[in-house]
Amino acid sequence: MTIKTTQLRIRDEEHRARCDALLEHVEAASASGVVLFDADYIKYYTGFTFIPTERPMAFAMNAKGERGLFVPRLELEHAQANALVERVSHYLEYPDDPHPMFVLADMLKAMGIGGRTLADADGYPWILGYRGPALSEAAKVDIHQARAFIEDQMAVKSPAEIELIKESVRWGNLAHTLLQRYTRAGLTETEVTARASNEATRAMLDAIGPIYRAASSGLGIGGAFAGYRGQIGRNAAIPHALANNLTFQAGDTLVTGAAAAVWGYLSELERTMFIGPPSGEQRRFFDHMVALQDTALGALAPGKRCADVDLAVRAYFEKHDLMPYWKHHSGHCIGLRYHEGPFLDKGDTTVLKPGMVFTVEPGLYVPGVGGFRHSDTVVITGDGVEMLTYYPRAIESLTLPAD
Amino acid sequence: MTIKTTQLRIRDEEHRARCDALLEHVEAASASGVVLFDADYIKYYTGFTFIPTERPMAFAMNAKGERGLFVPRLELEHAQANALVERVSHYLEYPDDPHPMFVLADMLKAMGIGGRTLADADGYPWILGYRGPALSEAAKVDIHQARAFIEDQMAVKSPAEIELIKESVRWGNLAHTLLQRYTRAGLTETEVTARASNEATRAMLDAIGPIYRAASSGLGIGGAFAGYRGQIGRNAAIPHALANNLTFQAGDTLVTGAAAAVWGYLSELERTMFIGPPSGEQRRFFDHMVALQDTALGALAPGKRCADVDLAVRAYFEKHDLMPYWKHHSGHCIGLRYHEGPFLDKGDTTVLKPGMVFTVEPGLYVPGVGGFRHSDTVVITGDGVEMLTYYPRAIESLTLPAD
Repeated sequence: MTIKTTQLRIRDEEHRARCDALLEHVEAASASGVVLFDADYIKYYTGFTFIPTERPMAFAMNAKGERGLFVPRLELEHAQANALVERVSHYLEYPDDPHPMFVLADMLKAMGIGGRTLADADGYPWILGYRGPALSEAAKVDIHQARAFIEDQMAVKSPAEIELIKESVRWGNLAHTLLQRYTRAGLTETEVTARASNEATRAMLDAIGPIYRAASSGLGIGGAFAGYRGQIGRNAAIPHALANNLTFQAGDTLVTGAAAAVWGYLSELERTMFIGPPSGEQRRFFDHMVALQDTALGALAPGKRCADVDLAVRAYFEKHDLMPYWKHHSGHCIGLRYHEGPFLDKGDTTVLKPGMVFTVEPGLYVPGVGGFRHSDTVVITGDGVEMLTYYPRAIESLTLPAD
Repeated sequence: MTIKTTQLRIRDEEHRARCDALLEHVEAASASGVVLFDADYIKYYTGFTFIPTERPMAFAMNAKGERGLFVPRLELEHAQANALVERVSHYLEYPDDPHPMFVLADMLKAMGIGGRTLADADGYPWILGYRGPALSEAAKVDIHQARAFIEDQMAVKSPAEIELIKESVRWGNLAHTLLQRYTRAGLTETEVTARASNEATRAMLDAIGPIYRAASSGLGIGGAFAGYRGQIGRNAAIPHALANNLTFQAGDTLVTGAAAAVWGYLSELERTMFIGPPSGEQRRFFDHMVALQDTALGALAPGKRCADVDLAVRAYFEKHDLMPYWKHHSGHCIGLRYHEGPFLDKGDTTVLKPGMVFTVEPGLYVPGVGGFRHSDTVVITGDGVEMLTYYPRAIESLTLPAD
């Protein structure tokens, strides 16, 4: 009799199934194996989570399905604890003599990976001070690009992945509820963002702490979060990295964002809100924005192309003379990365499949008035779409008191 | 008469001087120009700050010194506001038809960049769902690697850069002071981290808000921060991404981290602390750790090699039979990236120069007892080293009450 515990993570049998699909691709490509450097890919196939630095890491699988991790000494015990890999090879430190890439070359040789080899890149990327030779030089292999296959595989989510995204939605929704509750004229975005995010994170940890791991391979998202996208009223066009610590004022148009990382999986919730009753102009753009989002939602169905959705949205823009306010396409996939392909873009001909999880977020950007954008996270079903986010979308629900 | 305002940012004349140095390299390499995709490089040469996504962006400079930015529609006004560039070329959206890389190819052609071309990569990296052709294919240019030159240029900081790093130190120090003050047995790391970071950020904004911009091209660091590195007592070996929301207990060995982003520039402050009086074993490893850090600090001087510093540290490790507790080298450069080369590593033969800013952080990792690491940020001077961080290092200052 086995007792299976509840887990908020991808189980190893699913990692194995993902590797099996990759192995079929290795065989179909008549390759000796595959080498991956991308932290999200390595997490996807093994569950091994790390924040990429100048110390190179890699996952390799040979044509027999034997799997190995290549890590610095610092990550050795962590890698050895991973149930998916039969082999861990490590180097002491970066840089070192010999260069770590030759330690990886030795591991590949020992695994029988040589000649025709799939990889996501020809060597570890030069990030955070890393410098090194191409993999094709260090290991004398012939590299063929594996990214397109992997991205296609990652785009269709399993039931377990959708459950994690739903869990992310729940805590993003809490954070957003608190953000809306605490936002008032006279307060700064920094204090409101911090208060909502911290309270939501603490509630989340009190609710699911024993089974929760953020496990995000990126820096920065370590709990529930809700905040402003630097698109407050007068500054709607200023990217967030350059935004000031703005003070809310009556009359502001606000664009929010909320999410939580759950075992690395993300969702996206964004709302347009007003401080005080919206002006006629604010209401007009808000209504168009909701109609644009409804247009996109109505166009999402399995068998359609991504481009069809964006073309429907653009037709609405053009019909209502809104193209001067257009800035971007209608949405993107989301999962372990906060943006993923395919994109709801007129240039993307990918056919929609059940299990693909998209953000739906056509936006209008009006100089001097603000940005207008809701973003909801949805999954393509067998016959349409299921909205995973459920935060109110109506203008009455999103209008804050003026004082 | 001109009135020059105080600014917490790099001024355009410094960006121009950086570009001039790059232009000399273009000339020395007999290249037609240079193309950069890396967000930190683009910020370094132009001040243009953005968070990289699937929408490709690039900076280009031809052999005459004419500069251009290549951006999506979404970033057009932002790019046009940049004083460093004479030309902005944009595409509507990613993906699109034609693929944006051909829009970049047109801009390069118009700038006379063709044939032998320096670049940091042969095309935009495949991040967040981006897929695209190599630059060498799309623009029919012959790519030569520019990264080594750029990394060497970025490694030596100017007085203005050191001022920004000092400003970062100041607010990291405040956050760390609050972190230490609020850490108590029975509280969780999440609540203490949030409280210290938020209060420090708010104080920072009250003090320098009108001239402050985080302007970090990475996600996540948007103010002052202090927290724990997942290296609390019993869990010293677990990477942070997988750490639980731990509750502090008497007897814990703690390793902290504090920083702030100031116009993108970072510093690093880490301390080993104890909850309750340290045991003999804790004290022994703490004392060795401080001695190791002193060894590294004493070995830093212009004209020496990075390797010399790490070799001195390793000699101490070996002399005192501490190699079982060794996990990583002695430090790294820091600036716009939280890790940069060169590294205080026995494999790095770079000669230390005045203006290089390093973290100094040899560490000991003892199973069941904890991690022992201080990290200080220092700058190489004309005859030695200046410590930019000034947080107390002594065990008496870093021992918290047990209850």
